[in-house]
Amino acid sequence: MELFDLDALTRDAAASGTPAIPLVQMLTARAGVAARGFVHWGATSQDVIDTALVLQMWDGLDLLERALRQVAGRCAVMADRHRRTLMAGRTLLQHAVPITFGLKAARWLALTTRLIVRLREVRPRALVVQFGGAAGTLAVLGQNGQRVMHELARALGLGVPDLPWHAERDRVAEVAARLGIVAGAMAKVATDIVLLSQTEVGEVSTHEPGAARSSAMPHKRNPAEATNAIAAARLALSVVPALMAGLVQEHERAAGAWQVEWDALPRLFGHTASAVHWVHHALAGMEIDAARMQANLDASCGLIMSEALMTALAPALGRDEAYRLVQHLASQATTQRRPLADVAAADARVRASLSIETMARAFDLSGYLGSTEVFIARALEGYHALPAMETR
Amino acid sequence: MELFDLDALTRDAAASGTPAIPLVQMLTARAGVAARGFVHWGATSQDVIDTALVLQMWDGLDLLERALRQVAGRCAVMADRHRRTLMAGRTLLQHAVPITFGLKAARWLALTTRLIVRLREVRPRALVVQFGGAAGTLAVLGQNGQRVMHELARALGLGVPDLPWHAERDRVAEVAARLGIVAGAMAKVATDIVLLSQTEVGEVSTHEPGAARSSAMPHKRNPAEATNAIAAARLALSVVPALMAGLVQEHERAAGAWQVEWDALPRLFGHTASAVHWVHHALAGMEIDAARMQANLDASCGLIMSEALMTALAPALGRDEAYRLVQHLASQATTQRRPLADVAAADARVRASLSIETMARAFDLSGYLGSTEVFIARALEGYHALPAMETR
Amino acid sequence: MELFDLDALTRDAAASGTPAIPLVQMLTARAGVAARGFVHWGATSQDVIDTALVLQMWDGLDLLERALRQVAGRCAVMADRHRRTLMAGRTLLQHAVPITFGLKAARWLALTTRLIVRLREVRPRALVVQFGGAAGTLAVLGQNGQRVMHELARALGLGVPDLPWHAERDRVAEVAARLGIVAGAMAKVATDIVLLSQTEVGEVSTHEPGAARSSAMPHKRNPAEATNAIAAARLALSVVPALMAGLVQEHERAAGAWQVEWDALPRLFGHTASAVHWVHHALAGMEIDAARMQANLDASCGLIMSEALMTALAPALGRDEAYRLVQHLASQATTQRRPLADVAAADARVRASLSIETMARAFDLSGYLGSTEVFIARALEGYHALPAMETR
Amino acid sequence: MELFDLDALTRDAAASGTPAIPLVQMLTARAGVAARGFVHWGATSQDVIDTALVLQMWDGLDLLERALRQVAGRCAVMADRHRRTLMAGRTLLQHAVPITFGLKAARWLALTTRLIVRLREVRPRALVVQFGGAAGTLAVLGQNGQRVMHELARALGLGVPDLPWHAERDRVAEVAARLGIVAGAMAKVATDIVLLSQTEVGEVSTHEPGAARSSAMPHKRNPAEATNAIAAARLALSVVPALMAGLVQEHERAAGAWQVEWDALPRLFGHTASAVHWVHHALAGMEIDAARMQANLDASCGLIMSEALMTALAPALGRDEAYRLVQHLASQATTQRRPLADVAAADARVRASLSIETMARAFDLSGYLGSTEVFIARALEGYHALPAMETR
Repeated sequence: MELFDLDALTRDAAASGTPAIPLVQMLTARAGVAARGFVHWGATSQDVIDTALVLQMWDGLDLLERALRQVAGRCAVMADRHRRTLMAGRTLLQHAVPITFGLKAARWLALTTRLIVRLREVRPRALVVQFGGAAGTLAVLGQNGQRVMHELARALGLGVPDLPWHAERDRVAEVAARLGIVAGAMAKVATDIVLLSQTEVGEVSTHEPGAARSSAMPHKRNPAEATNAIAAARLALSVVPALMAGLVQEHERAAGAWQVEWDALPRLFGHTASAVHWVHHALAGMEIDAARMQANLDASCGLIMSEALMTALAPALGRDEAYRLVQHLASQATTQRRPLADVAAADARVRASLSIETMARAFDLSGYLGSTEVFIARALEGYHALPAMETR
Repeated sequence: MELFDLDALTRDAAASGTPAIPLVQMLTARAGVAARGFVHWGATSQDVIDTALVLQMWDGLDLLERALRQVAGRCAVMADRHRRTLMAGRTLLQHAVPITFGLKAARWLALTTRLIVRLREVRPRALVVQFGGAAGTLAVLGQNGQRVMHELARALGLGVPDLPWHAERDRVAEVAARLGIVAGAMAKVATDIVLLSQTEVGEVSTHEPGAARSSAMPHKRNPAEATNAIAAARLALSVVPALMAGLVQEHERAAGAWQVEWDALPRLFGHTASAVHWVHHALAGMEIDAARMQANLDASCGLIMSEALMTALAPALGRDEAYRLVQHLASQATTQRRPLADVAAADARVRASLSIETMARAFDLSGYLGSTEVFIARALEGYHALPAMETR
Repeated sequence: MELFDLDALTRDAAASGTPAIPLVQMLTARAGVAARGFVHWGATSQDVIDTALVLQMWDGLDLLERALRQVAGRCAVMADRHRRTLMAGRTLLQHAVPITFGLKAARWLALTTRLIVRLREVRPRALVVQFGGAAGTLAVLGQNGQRVMHELARALGLGVPDLPWHAERDRVAEVAARLGIVAGAMAKVATDIVLLSQTEVGEVSTHEPGAARSSAMPHKRNPAEATNAIAAARLALSVVPALMAGLVQEHERAAGAWQVEWDALPRLFGHTASAVHWVHHALAGMEIDAARMQANLDASCGLIMSEALMTALAPALGRDEAYRLVQHLASQATTQRRPLADVAAADARVRASLSIETMARAFDLSGYLGSTEVFIARALEGYHALPAMETR
Repeated sequence: MELFDLDALTRDAAASGTPAIPLVQMLTARAGVAARGFVHWGATSQDVIDTALVLQMWDGLDLLERALRQVAGRCAVMADRHRRTLMAGRTLLQHAVPITFGLKAARWLALTTRLIVRLREVRPRALVVQFGGAAGTLAVLGQNGQRVMHELARALGLGVPDLPWHAERDRVAEVAARLGIVAGAMAKVATDIVLLSQTEVGEVSTHEPGAARSSAMPHKRNPAEATNAIAAARLALSVVPALMAGLVQEHERAAGAWQVEWDALPRLFGHTASAVHWVHHALAGMEIDAARMQANLDASCGLIMSEALMTALAPALGRDEAYRLVQHLASQATTQRRPLADVAAADARVRASLSIETMARAFDLSGYLGSTEVFIARALEGYHALPAMETR
């Protein structure tokens, strides 16, 4: 862009309501004699700007996919390495049943893999040239419109759309939505990290040694990367509705809704990329404290195995009765701060229903993981099945 | 649902924070002795609710596709019938260059066709069973988790997901985004109809004879259907961000973001369907006033052909000089309210540059349509290439 | 409303694009002979609907204020009772410095008090009659327009606006924004409750004894009320942008943006009220575990007093040097899992800088509360200074 | 800010998650020996950033108010000058009843006046210092917290809040909402301008002579300023939900929601100011074509007086019967393209009901303006009653 006077371009763009007018003038001034008469021939401002936008989206999608693959790579390592690292599964932020940290990482991985697939999928539909002339008829070009459009698309490496899309912005809205999904997914991962980093949980830490994280409290180990990711993701998500609302454009070209894209779309790419960047950074420097995970499991008196105990009791008592009995035992364990296993062992109905071995199995966390390893394997497969990135 | 006491269900759902708990109790009470012990075995509330949601989305996507095909059908008829019905192409709500009404309808058609394609595409990824148990491990089922999940999916006719997706809501967000795009696209069509129905434009009318449209003004012919469509589309679009924000869910199951879906997703389907319905209704009853289209073209003194005139002059004068000359002539025509053709014919430079035939061609609207018919044909092809709807 | 046939009203409303037309017909049919000729005289549909809306907003604002006062009342009791109940202050979800639970409740209280003030403030500006006739001129009433408008307003107990506001919806947007702020504030309180209820934190519990909270896990004590509040608040917040976008209305009355209000505004009131309701419910049944608060403070090895220690050391070492020293000591304490007080006492520079009394003071949590009680008192004053509710 | 190395500040801000840490370090390095030990004493990063934000909001609110007063000034001139300039009142973009352009400008004026009042109102509540220390207790300052806070507020010319507001962002959300209302209101005015500028309407023009407005069509007179205003307003409105969602912040200070403000709030001010700027620009250069307004009224065959005719007939026929009769006559007039007055004069029932004078009055547009002048006067009064701007 150093070929052009950007200050003049900006000033004149505001005056005429579009950067294309001054740009065409500058380009004409630079063109050779033979070409000069044909600069912008048959095109309209929006053809120029939209096609430039598509080329930028191409690069942006490349950058995002590359960054997401880095995130996925990190998750894959953790999913593999921590297949059997026990931790509390938490629902509504309460201990539910045991999972492994590998499964959590595998869910992040499968999510990220799906994000990559979605970004790849949208390319053929979205990365198409815009070329319609003043009102989408290519009138200036007479019978040559189609040929010129195909040549232009070929020269730029873009696809050819069914029709010009000056005022039908479903392609833009679709790209925006997919980026919003990327951003939101990154915020999900980052939120998990922030929650796992809490002082009382302490299962992961993204603190870089020596880095100041608080201006007032020397001990603070703030999850700064995950926090940045959440902020960036929220900013990205806030842009999406403006681009979805941009579907509503008047007649052949719009007064306002289209112009929103000039600011909104670059920002959406920027914020989304920032969210992915910070999640990658958080994962890359993350320490995982398996001992603390175990300690947190131990601290809740075995309550996390209440479902397992109920399941063991159900054949003898029926599911409903078993539920009520275990609810009662769990409440006792909580009040008396005793292990659920002990409270259960002291209960006559439990003793009448379960053998000692069955009891023991009901409190064996690593034996209560069901399909955990299958799911981890599936997430890894999905990731490894991703086709390699194309180079342009 | 008349099998269950809905009032009790609602009341107990509020108390326990989920409808699944009372539902399971009611279902258990109705189950036979053999089955009773296994109702909800291995599942969690969210498995029930999410899978029900997916089944409802299936039906919802069917209904939407069917309605969109009706809209497309209407557009296809108009695109075909009005291939050569001249009207003003309008950009920023100003006359730009001529188009035909068939081209406008073809753009609506191509847009609607793309919407249908998008809804079909999302189905395999989104219409999958949810089955993970308390924290996504299927722990209760031990080694049988995968088999049960596949059987369940088969029984319901749903796909099997890579992993349970209790807290990874990219599928839901993706469906939401696609519906939002449908709604926004419908609002685009409806906005065009409202604008074309303006008293001063009057090119289409969606008025049903005899229908009162104003409580105070007997002459009013309000575009009520298109207005309803716009309102419904805006309501639909307002729901999408809540579902995109729902991507951010804590740990294995969320406290709040998930529960939002129970209200938001049905509403999104309802509002979107309403927008499609009203657009169809507007199109179905729409009268097209080709004479008024021509009159509106005539009323602007041939200014709509300024680009054509400039194009004709460019070989002789250069594009820049031609632009300035025509701008000058157009300004004269406007001030003096004379046809641009006359003003141009009286100008010495024009006369020196153009033969009488070229001049005439420059003001021949129906000769200045470029690729219009090609684009219409392409939109019709795209529509006719849509595969038939599957029946479940 | 049992005076009218609601089904017919609904059906005819859809057909004519407004419920006012069938309503006026029904009302005319019921009016006495003398009145019949003057039903709806000089008014337009939107006058009827907007004025009805304002009357409903009046009731809605009353209900919300009443519910918020209940929330505030709960917070006031807790702020007062727990003035000195120590707990960890948490920033970025990490222990920062000690606070008291009373201060947290006081912040909720001050927030809720400000919400109430805002709702009261908006009433005179928003609760005004709508009366302008077909295009805001009151043309039918000739010279009597002002007199009729004032009589109408007086009869309904509403204010008189500066001008009719058919297409200038700043009042509606303002009410919507204030409700959104109420909803968001409730979600803040509810989020704090969910976080404090986490298994690893356990400082509050909103569990009702005996209530089932999970369909699969008998021990679960889900914060269902706070979860419901978060979901309702998110739904409320999702409606606000639709009403803000509704500021953009065409000419004298709009095609679409206005009609959005009919669905959006009642929903906004409903969801907001639901959020307030559930927060009140959560607070009303909340148990506060002061011992667990103390235990959580104890568990972090005194790190929460790092700022206090740094402050004590600063006069001798300078703030920068003190920061670095305490950062080093905190890191040691963490690695070795020893109390920061012990690690500090063993450090030569600390011993050289601080007397034993100063050291002891630096680790006295209840002596490190600064303005805590002043702030609590101020929140209570603000609450008690609220004027009583007016009765209509 | 040239006192500081902004590049270093940016880089270190990202690393530590807040610009306050490097800023404090830089400031300490520049402070004199006596002060150095007390830089940032008792404060936390967020105290610095939030207070800086409030100071910037102060300036921003000043700038916005000043710009809105310019818009109001323009509207006031037009409202006064065009009190009796007849134009079509339009509802759902259809001719309804006559208004004057002065009334339209008066509605813009009253709206803008209310915006100014709202911005002034929010200042005392929002422009308050942030000072709470690490977790809102001012612990470091012991008994001196209140005194220091008051001194700080006085030094900066800010108010003192009830409590520190680190995690209670209702003030920020309220400012955001008011700016959103400003932006939306500007888009309403700009939309009216775009619609009035349409080729077929042509009642106003914002075209600057000689300015190029299209890269391809020399005759185009695009409403570029109003278009820019609409785009800026949409961008502004898109930021508001991010700041409303920011109400939900965790505990004493948030991980993500707060950081969003750093980007969102400056952008909101910028886009809103841009919208006001472009509306002012559009109004300042706007030409009003009273003759075209009259021509548009004339073109619709007097249908715009259908309500007046019905009102004249109602005493004789009853409102219902009069409505149906005029609907019939209006339909005839439309089909036959004859003036409604002629069609009515030819109808026996009309002739039996109305004297020639009453008939004439029913078609006298300037006699059918009701309270128009009263409303204009009221808008002007409201504007002139605005207190002068304060200087800081």
